[in-house]
Amino acid sequence: MNLNIALLPGDGIGPEVLNQAVKCLQAVEETFNHTFVYKEAPVGAIAIDKTGNPLPDKTLQLCKDADAVLFGSIGDPKYDNDPKAKVRPEQGLLKLRKELGLYTNVRPVKVFPTLIGKSPLKEEIISGTDFTIYRELTGGIYFGEKKLNEEGTIASDLCEYSEKEISRIAHLAFKAAKNRRNKLTLVDKANVLESSRLWRKVVTKIGESYPEVELDFLFVDNAAMQVILNPNQFDVVLTENLFGDIISDEASVIGGSIGLLASASIGDENALFEPIHGSYPQAKGKDIANPVASILSAAMLLEHFQLFEEAMAIREAVDKALQKGIVTPDLDEKSNFGTNHVGDFIADNI
Amino acid sequence: MNLNIALLPGDGIGPEVLNQAVKCLQAVEETFNHTFVYKEAPVGAIAIDKTGNPLPDKTLQLCKDADAVLFGSIGDPKYDNDPKAKVRPEQGLLKLRKELGLYTNVRPVKVFPTLIGKSPLKEEIISGTDFTIYRELTGGIYFGEKKLNEEGTIASDLCEYSEKEISRIAHLAFKAAKNRRNKLTLVDKANVLESSRLWRKVVTKIGESYPEVELDFLFVDNAAMQVILNPNQFDVVLTENLFGDIISDEASVIGGSIGLLASASIGDENALFEPIHGSYPQAKGKDIANPVASILSAAMLLEHFQLFEEAMAIREAVDKALQKGIVTPDLDEKSNFGTNHVGDFIADNI
Ligand SMILES: CC(C)[C@H](C(=O)O)[C@@H](O)C(=O)O
Ligand SMILES: CC(C)[C@H](C(=O)O)[C@@H](O)C(=O)O
Repeated sequence: MNLNIALLPGDGIGPEVLNQAVKCLQAVEETFNHTFVYKEAPVGAIAIDKTGNPLPDKTLQLCKDADAVLFGSIGDPKYDNDPKAKVRPEQGLLKLRKELGLYTNVRPVKVFPTLIGKSPLKEEIISGTDFTIYRELTGGIYFGEKKLNEEGTIASDLCEYSEKEISRIAHLAFKAAKNRRNKLTLVDKANVLESSRLWRKVVTKIGESYPEVELDFLFVDNAAMQVILNPNQFDVVLTENLFGDIISDEASVIGGSIGLLASASIGDENALFEPIHGSYPQAKGKDIANPVASILSAAMLLEHFQLFEEAMAIREAVDKALQKGIVTPDLDEKSNFGTNHVGDFIADNI
Repeated sequence: MNLNIALLPGDGIGPEVLNQAVKCLQAVEETFNHTFVYKEAPVGAIAIDKTGNPLPDKTLQLCKDADAVLFGSIGDPKYDNDPKAKVRPEQGLLKLRKELGLYTNVRPVKVFPTLIGKSPLKEEIISGTDFTIYRELTGGIYFGEKKLNEEGTIASDLCEYSEKEISRIAHLAFKAAKNRRNKLTLVDKANVLESSRLWRKVVTKIGESYPEVELDFLFVDNAAMQVILNPNQFDVVLTENLFGDIISDEASVIGGSIGLLASASIGDENALFEPIHGSYPQAKGKDIANPVASILSAAMLLEHFQLFEEAMAIREAVDKALQKGIVTPDLDEKSNFGTNHVGDFIADNI
């Protein structure tokens, strides 16, 4: 298969972990006889520094022309506490999601048996956890109208959803549930929010076309408890943008390391794959960042193109690294292995 | 001291747990020579059933006239999955908060040593956890304009905050931090939301008047992780309404039982005290509901009126019950003690 892959390394540890993912894709090319063409472009703080724009037009065009985007991470602390900053790295990511129409963010939450001891949660709570979060990614309060009055004393954000925005991701989530354990949980705040009541109405309606899937509902505050009280109750979790941001980050803690979790952001015409961890600026350039999440993003990319055997080869190589303790120091304090070494080991085992 | 206390038992287990709190207040009256006058009124689903209104005018007036409100819980599943329901029990609570001007919800998160084993989190993570959440309670998306277009296909909720709304709770939170360990963490989503950027600006400004308090910031998604990764980093957490709803429920899991957690909702002229657990309709009338959260709400009520010794008497009686295993089955499967028995034991030990 031929694939054009846009590489957006971004900020902080983004470039170094993305490099390892590319190594693995190259190993897949060789082993399975594919041809992937990689083109790189700046995004985030680094793009602001270079061009004043967190998502330069050229970067956007490159992504639109590509079959898929492999993303590193973005964000730089120098923008975080500056409420007056007119341009922020995050705007680049948000615009990219919107422009590429990536309305569904898929985040698998799975416990790696070798790492179960690293979780802050007890083993009996998390053992066997395996669910997937479907987070709406191009609507809601992230993209609603924002206002600040002239005096700078009143600010607002609008959370808006349409039936269409809800139904397209709902169909994907129901289909995923059908291929898994036939359970879908909608997380909302329907006892307070009008938009949540629309979610509940639309999803209930769509559920009628998937009679084999059991549908249930959780208020987001309760969901925040259930994720840590009993994560095994979940199969597919569907939710809106902001709730998905919070709940999926919370869930990312279950497995013991955020350095292992990948995500896919998909739309009708494009797809983007990224680790869920941030840019972790303190670790930048130190060869200590965990490359596994980025490498598993590459596996999700392959799966998106039905290259299941290839993706499995990556996953098995990752498992081998974890089992043999070829891991970065975040997973094992005593480890001396760096980002590059772990990346090489996994690529060599494909 | 003379106090007029409005009792709002509400739905589900509300009435039975509230009864135990009243027993304890009566024991305090006797032991410490106070006179508390109790007047009861309906709220929530039960008020809808009786009057069609989740917060009847008489109930509201009673609360306004009282020195403080002791609240049970509200909510009935028959309203949850009915997007068309025009009246919902929750509206009663929300209106009460708004009408009484209860703009600050205070939720202490503390680990009871005897219950540490019941937490889904590992002991080394939660041991020593002791922080307090200050959640804004009468603004934000809960009370912003809600819209649904005529076709019922587009819905929206507005999240709006003014400088005034932010600063009054911020002052309370900074003062609390001064009396604790001098640390305040603002939880927001300033990388995306205009309203969060206003929070950050206003809170930063106010922080200048509290130079002894260290102020830091966390994005809400990160906060959802930190609460379970390292809850000991927190002293006072300040946040807006919806984030506070989610983060405080998540945090409530740390201690091993939501049946122990109380909260105070305070304004300039009124105050309301309630357990943070819900109406738990499945347990209604079975004499199995844990009364401790409600009893500790009564302790918070006493503290609000500077009756510290009295509150301490309640807290010590609760500790005694926990240590002696005089607890409801949610805390100890083998326990045969009911709601009433636990309430009696605690009241008798005051
Ligand atoms: C960087 C930020 C804007 C982003 C979000 O909130 O969506 C991130 O937290 C994520 O989840 O991908
Ligand atoms: C019942 C509901 C409206 C309420 C809220 O969301 O504020 C509850 O969850 C709470 O936290 O007191």
